[in-house]
Order: sequence, then C-alpha cells, then structure tokens
Amino acid sequence: MSSVLVVGSVAYDSIETPQANVEEALGGSATFFAAAASYFVPVNLVAVVGDDFRHNEIAFLNQRQVDLEGLRTEPGKTFRWKGRYLQNMNDRETIYTHLNVFATFNPLLPDKYRNSSFVFLANISPELQYNVVQQVYRPKFVAMDTMNFWISGSMDALLRTLAVVDGLLINDSEVKQLSGEENLFTGARKIQAMGPKTLIIKKGEHGALMVHGDEHFYCPAFPVTSLLDPTGAGDTFAGGFMGYLARTDLITMENLRRAVVFGSALASFCVEDFSVGRLMNLSREEIHNRVLVLRKMTDFAIDPDWALVT
Amino acid sequence: MSSVLVVGSVAYDSIETPQANVEEALGGSATFFAAAASYFVPVNLVAVVGDDFRHNEIAFLNQRQVDLEGLRTEPGKTFRWKGRYLQNMNDRETIYTHLNVFATFNPLLPDKYRNSSFVFLANISPELQYNVVQQVYRPKFVAMDTMNFWISGSMDALLRTLAVVDGLLINDSEVKQLSGEENLFTGARKIQAMGPKTLIIKKGEHGALMVHGDEHFYCPAFPVTSLLDPTGAGDTFAGGFMGYLARTDLITMENLRRAVVFGSALASFCVEDFSVGRLMNLSREEIHNRVLVLRKMTDFAIDPDWALVT
Repeated sequence: MSSVLVVGSVAYDSIETPQANVEEALGGSATFFAAAASYFVPVNLVAVVGDDFRHNEIAFLNQRQVDLEGLRTEPGKTFRWKGRYLQNMNDRETIYTHLNVFATFNPLLPDKYRNSSFVFLANISPELQYNVVQQVYRPKFVAMDTMNFWISGSMDALLRTLAVVDGLLINDSEVKQLSGEENLFTGARKIQAMGPKTLIIKKGEHGALMVHGDEHFYCPAFPVTSLLDPTGAGDTFAGGFMGYLARTDLITMENLRRAVVFGSALASFCVEDFSVGRLMNLSREEIHNRVLVLRKMTDFAIDPDWALVT
Repeated sequence: MSSVLVVGSVAYDSIETPQANVEEALGGSATFFAAAASYFVPVNLVAVVGDDFRHNEIAFLNQRQVDLEGLRTEPGKTFRWKGRYLQNMNDRETIYTHLNVFATFNPLLPDKYRNSSFVFLANISPELQYNVVQQVYRPKFVAMDTMNFWISGSMDALLRTLAVVDGLLINDSEVKQLSGEENLFTGARKIQAMGPKTLIIKKGEHGALMVHGDEHFYCPAFPVTSLLDPTGAGDTFAGGFMGYLARTDLITMENLRRAVVFGSALASFCVEDFSVGRLMNLSREEIHNRVLVLRKMTDFAIDPDWALVT
C-alpha cells in the first residue's frame, strides 16, 4: 500500500450559514484532504500553523495514520478565514482572509516524504506547487488544485506547474477561465494539452465529471438532505480520490472511475457537519453504503430490443 | 405499441446566439416533443397555428407517424417568440413573445385521441392542462411541464393539475420555487406529496435527476461539443422519455431509467442545430450510440476488496 502526500493549509475557519454559525473551527485544505485520505492509506501532511495552534485538535489525524512531521509551527498566528453562505448554500462571500503564517509558507518536504508515489498539491501558489514536485523523487501520480486567483494573476507559473502534473481538480467556471472556452468538453481538451491527462471537474451539487484521455466519467453528488456546511468538500473529494488511488496503486480508467466515486462519497459526509466533524470516525461500511447508492443512482440496463434495431 | 398524445405549442422562433442567428424557424413545445417521440411511437399532436402557418414545414412529422388532426388553424398569426442566448449559452433573454392565436388556445381532443394511454401536457396554463386530462378516458401515464410564471401566478390551478398527473418535468430552480425548499431532494419529496410520483428534474448541461417514489436516478448530459441552440431541449427530452415509455408500455423504475436516458440522448441531438434540424432524420443506430456513451459515462465496478472490509 502506497502512502499519499498532501501539501496545503491548516486553518481556523469561521462560518455563517442560514442555519448555524461556527467560530474558529479546524479547517484548511490539507486538513480535509488528510482526514478523507486517511480512510485508505497512511498520509503525510505538509503545512504550517502559528504558535496559537491547538495541536490537540488534530490528534485524531495522528490516530488515523496521518504523519504530521511535515506540519511546521512558526511564530505568529494560524491562517484564519471567515465566510458566509447564502440561502442557496452554493454562493458564499468571504468576510475576511488572514493568511498570517501561511503568507510565507515555503513547503520543505521531510526527507522521508520525498519517496511519495501519490502527491496532492492543494490550492497554494503555483510556484510553491512546482517546488514541491521538484522535491519528490519519482512520483507515480501528482494531482493539483487551483483557483481563479492564480489563473488570472499567475498564468505563467500555473502553466509551468500544469506541465508537470498528471491530474487537475478544478471547478467548471475555472475550466472556462483557464481554457478560454465556454464548452466544458472543448475546454477540458485544451487543458489536457497543457499537461494533466486527467481532469476532474467538480460541479458541487451537480456531481463531478472526469475527463481522462478521451474518455468521460460522470459521478452524481450523493443525495444529501442534511447539508450543513459545504466548506472543505472539494479537498475532501480530493482526499477520497487520491487515497483510493494510492491504496490500489493502479492508474487505469477503470480504477480512476472508482476513485472518483470514493471522492464523491467522502465529500457527501463532509458537508453534513461543520469542519471535519463527520470525517473523524467513519466506518468503512458507511462509506461503502454511499458508494452503493451512487452505483444504483446511475445504473440502467440497455434495452436489448432497441439495441437490435439498427 | 401505444401512442402518445402531446398538447402544447407550435410556433415560429427567432433566435440569436453568439455564433449565428435564425429568423422564424419552426419551434414550439409540441413540435420538439413530437419530433423526438416519433422515433418510438405514433404521436397525436394538439396545438393551434394561425392562417400564416407554412404547413409544409411540418410535413416531415406526418411522415414520421405524427397525426396532425389535432392541429387547428385559426384566423390570425402563429405564436412567435424571439430570444437571445448569452455567451455561456445557458442564460437567455426574451426579446419578444407574441402569443397571437395561442392566446385563446383551448385544446379540444379529437375523439380518436381520447383513448390515449400516454399523455404529455407541455407548458401551457394549468387550467388548460387540467381540462386536457379530463378529456382522456383512462390514461396510464400523464406527465406535465410547467414554469415559474404558473408557479407564481396560478398556484391553485397548478395544485389541482399536479394532483391528477403521474409525472412532472421541471428544472431545479422551479423545484425550489414550487416546494419552498432549498434542498432539491427535500423539495422533490414535497412535490411528490402534491401528486406526481415521478419527478424529472432537468439541469441542462448538468444532466437530469429522476425521483420516482423514494428512488433516485441520475443521467448526465451527453458531452455535446457543437452546441448551437438549446431551444427545445427540454421538450425534446420529454419526447424521448414519453416516447420510450409508451413504446415499452411499462411503468417500472427499471424502465423509467431507460426512458430518462433516451430523453437525454434525444435532447443532445436537438441542441446541435437550430429548430428541429437534427431531429428530422435520425437513425436508430445514432440514438443507440448515444445511449451507449451515456451508459459508459457513468459505469463503474464496485471494488470487491473494499466491499469485503466492513
């Protein structure tokens, strides 16, 4: 069984939703990713926190085989973000972003992480993402996240990083922005030409579309009826996806399909509570049951009569 | 093989898209529906046109076993609509709507249509939809469309009609408006309680979600790379769905799943050209090939190792 390396943020999130609020809850891309991936493989985490960080809050990650040697503590305060979700729970506004010690984050991999086969570069600057890739000896599958901020402001660096990764997790509006194409499928082709052969286009409540080579796979969102807080769903998806890939150590379309489904299943738990509340103690059976629901949700049999008439 | 009855509009559409424009092209909900359903069963069409209508333009429907006895010609002009699609091809603005003879449309079924087993009430006023249902002797499956205009302005009539139909085709924002629920799945439950046991929630480029009883089925949109004009896609979907149901005459979840896929396949042809350009002469093999693509797009195999670990 391989392990997976994640480089990203550990943060305190304050969140307002129409139903409830939470102050300074554990968050950050690396946190959500690690919590999800830990159901599949050992995880190595690289991030930075301030000297105000309450380390006991991530003790559960240690118990879940997440190695925290790469979590550095720097003088100053931990990254803080506050956001508010509107009534529809899709649109949100940022109330503040205090990067704090994250502003000077310069990820250095502990030596023992440099043999990682599976690497996830969460949403940090493309320069830092590139530097991380250079520190890994012979990765089998490197995936990255990005955002509109880097697409509009750091395109050169982003293109350099895209050229050295295998997978890109991106949302549908970012596909249009990065490719300059309104059509998602045409846009995906253009982005593949920039480097990543595997694109996972996240559509939130509408599910996720994977484009791998010239094949497509679509996985719907699990029908969540108790949506509380979407924060972290994308990184949780990435954790389920990369964790499953690393566990099975097999980069085929068939296995990538399953990985997307596990990503979708894990993300569906994430949004049912604030922070990592639902990700701390899932049973494998709970996860498997959601995979089965997703299987059934898209299953249909070809009509043999129609198929015969040509 | 059953037939299917559609009551709706036949119109002239003028359309502007970022790529091309078209003036006074054949359109209308009943036209798109009938063209799609005609690949599966004989169709009976009830609509009204003005004395300016160029009947030769729908001659192809006659050849495709669409009975036009229910198409009345009234003194005056045919329904005309003009719209403009924005760059993203999802948002559109209406430039004008001239109801003309459609303003006084009062659908009266020819006697021979009153035995119809499968009935589709396209987007007309819920009062008229209700009157149509009253004219059919013993329908097996009645489905309807509606829109925000009727939800906000004719709720009482709409509730009376919903109570007598089996299926509702609706988009996701209309689910929220009609149910008063932000959550799509909770909203669908509430709408089922109003009457229709089968909801098909159309999400455009994100596919379609069917809720039937307490089961869900999700079908993605076919990956169209040459989107020209989305007008009529919803009615084309309905035509494929109802046409397949009528052909197979079987209201089971298993068969409804296939019907949704055929709806999705037909809709994918519709948007590749203006008007009914792509719906006039499809081969069954072309349709079948898109069904196969949709099958493959969502297919995945459960990981037996993970399934065993509980």
